[in-house]
Amino acid sequence: MKSFDSLPSADGLWTGLRDLTGADTAIVVAQGLIRWIGARDALPAAAADRPSRDGGGALVTPGLVDCHTHLVYGGQRANEFAMRLAGATYEEVAKAGGGIVSSVRATREASEDELFASASGRLRSLLAEGVCAIEIKSGYGLSLEHERKQLRVARRLGEAHGVTVRTTFLGAHALPPEYAGRSGEYIDRVCNEMMPALAKEGLVDAVDVFCERIAFSLEETERVFQAAKALGIPVKLHAEQLSDMGGSALAARHGALSCDHIEHLSQAGIDAMRESGTVAVLLPGAFYALRDTQVPPIDALRAAGVPMAVSTDHNPGTSPALSLLLMANMACTLFRLTVPEAIDGITRHAARALGLQETHGLLAVGQPANFVLWNLKEAAELAYWFGQRPVRTVVRQGRIAEGVGAA
Amino acid sequence: MKSFDSLPSADGLWTGLRDLTGADTAIVVAQGLIRWIGARDALPAAAADRPSRDGGGALVTPGLVDCHTHLVYGGQRANEFAMRLAGATYEEVAKAGGGIVSSVRATREASEDELFASASGRLRSLLAEGVCAIEIKSGYGLSLEHERKQLRVARRLGEAHGVTVRTTFLGAHALPPEYAGRSGEYIDRVCNEMMPALAKEGLVDAVDVFCERIAFSLEETERVFQAAKALGIPVKLHAEQLSDMGGSALAARHGALSCDHIEHLSQAGIDAMRESGTVAVLLPGAFYALRDTQVPPIDALRAAGVPMAVSTDHNPGTSPALSLLLMANMACTLFRLTVPEAIDGITRHAARALGLQETHGLLAVGQPANFVLWNLKEAAELAYWFGQRPVRTVVRQGRIAEGVGAA
Ligand SMILES: [Zn+2]
Ligand SMILES: [Zn+2]
Repeated sequence: MKSFDSLPSADGLWTGLRDLTGADTAIVVAQGLIRWIGARDALPAAAADRPSRDGGGALVTPGLVDCHTHLVYGGQRANEFAMRLAGATYEEVAKAGGGIVSSVRATREASEDELFASASGRLRSLLAEGVCAIEIKSGYGLSLEHERKQLRVARRLGEAHGVTVRTTFLGAHALPPEYAGRSGEYIDRVCNEMMPALAKEGLVDAVDVFCERIAFSLEETERVFQAAKALGIPVKLHAEQLSDMGGSALAARHGALSCDHIEHLSQAGIDAMRESGTVAVLLPGAFYALRDTQVPPIDALRAAGVPMAVSTDHNPGTSPALSLLLMANMACTLFRLTVPEAIDGITRHAARALGLQETHGLLAVGQPANFVLWNLKEAAELAYWFGQRPVRTVVRQGRIAEGVGAA
Repeated sequence: MKSFDSLPSADGLWTGLRDLTGADTAIVVAQGLIRWIGARDALPAAAADRPSRDGGGALVTPGLVDCHTHLVYGGQRANEFAMRLAGATYEEVAKAGGGIVSSVRATREASEDELFASASGRLRSLLAEGVCAIEIKSGYGLSLEHERKQLRVARRLGEAHGVTVRTTFLGAHALPPEYAGRSGEYIDRVCNEMMPALAKEGLVDAVDVFCERIAFSLEETERVFQAAKALGIPVKLHAEQLSDMGGSALAARHGALSCDHIEHLSQAGIDAMRESGTVAVLLPGAFYALRDTQVPPIDALRAAGVPMAVSTDHNPGTSPALSLLLMANMACTLFRLTVPEAIDGITRHAARALGLQETHGLLAVGQPANFVLWNLKEAAELAYWFGQRPVRTVVRQGRIAEGVGAA
């Protein structure tokens, strides 16, 4: 793999671009930052003699942001997918070693290097499509040692691939088998041992919980949030995916960055999120793969002005999705987001869901140069085609990271 | 674009491959044909000293076959997609120039070279994923001149890209505006003028009709089929997508290669298809994009032993799909095909739907070398991940067509 540091600098004058409105656009990049952006005609004379790169009329957008992933895990579950389709019962799948426990087992068994290698392959798929920042959760280790391993891999992925990685500690993802029937004890461990230790090692940018009848209760969720607060770490929540637990309102009270899934979100939850400025993260890949029929309350979120992000929820069980553009299409097709909403959902609102609004998700002066040139004529094409790979060039962290040849 | 003829030959001994069952596999290619296939151990001594290429343990499958596309058209309809999501009524979309008539208009206005260029971009997306044979329909020209233009472009695409193209004359796709209220007259024209002229020019490998309440009746369909029969051209049908018109049984009586869509197919239709050996072509991309809820009768087709193919139905209105692997995932997820059925659906059964079973869709001695090496460990991964691009190498028509560097 070519090291990120050896990639060519994107510094210079980028011309011949069209923004999401179709307007002629030029971008000046210097020392890896966007220094100027506007119509070519309005370019300051001083900038005009910089080395110039002709975008050939390409559509330009901010770099994409994937704000909810479980990218690091051992194994995969294609065989389980095949067994279910062949008619196997959940019991048979479990007997054959399927289900989330199989991912926990495989993650625990894998070395850090093995996890790094398998996650790198998946990450490359997302990066090639223009992702410039990504959230990566733990939650398949479920012990201090193995959660640490996952989060260390997440950090290494960021360094090796030159992509902004936000790590999220999701120790409260599932009850590990060795704690069966002792949920409270496990949450004690999460709050008192795992979280402080991992935070101290600089591995925790945020804390997440899977709040659901099949996972952790509202009370347990609140305990985790309080522990995070004590450490000064922002929180987010897997909320109201299968039922309305009231998790979103709780998360909002704790100033959560985002509430994610939210198929069963109530108006009270929406109101609470609006007040706290919490982002609604929509995960249409899981909705699709689970053949869910409960669509999140998009109209009410829109009416309330709650920002909506769209993410892959990449995970081996319920969303083995490897394309954020496909998620934008699914958000439109399945959830009826408008095209501008879907595009905001994979750029600026996703950045906000990660607390990265100052550095990602916008084409704005002062932001690091993270942008994508597309082989497309109109912005709507980003969400219209599905299964496409229309990237021409990716500029990531001030370097030309993908598609150099094609630029 | 690099010409297909300049691509390197795939002749030689390919080793280190695993077939769909996971078995170690070697393939001998000579003069562009598969001359031997089997376990490395069983390789005849004479073959062992051929120039060897190590597949590095890659999964190998037959080249993919996309057996139902409307790939050649002018314009695209991303704006219409965006308008609908923004709440525009059908009337407003129509006023803004949307709907199928907009594709007809744009196709008529486009030159042959323009159509070739735009379809080439889309075709490249499919080829990069391992497609080695593709069906391309007319049906946006709706006059002799413009149907000819579409079919000529389809032929040129095959030559330029080194992919097997089967052309299908779909003059009876929609009633052209200038024939409003004169459906019978238009069908006369299709049968007596357009079809014979285009067939004479060698542009018609098969004939198709859109048999539906909003398109052409059973009687009109039969007239088109009779005209095709008189010219010795095989038929196929867009059947039972929106309602049970009985089109599939009619098509089967005419020995149709395939009946396509078939969401509303009856048991009588299935029985007729079984007897005639007609392939059921499933189009989950259109089902998905239209948010259809009527799943084709998969269990009954399976019980009857009717071969099921899976295709993109690529078209600008109801299925702007650019990935056949995504269609395999959708066939599993939405239609509950098993993984082996989905893989057969995009390989051998799709080949059969095009009458290409002797040359495509199988890894078999005597077939032209059309195969794909994947960056995957298990066959089930072909359908499990979605939004992926796992191709390592494509061998198309005996040449190494994609991913040379990565091999
Ligand atoms: Zn998740
Ligand atoms: Zn069609």
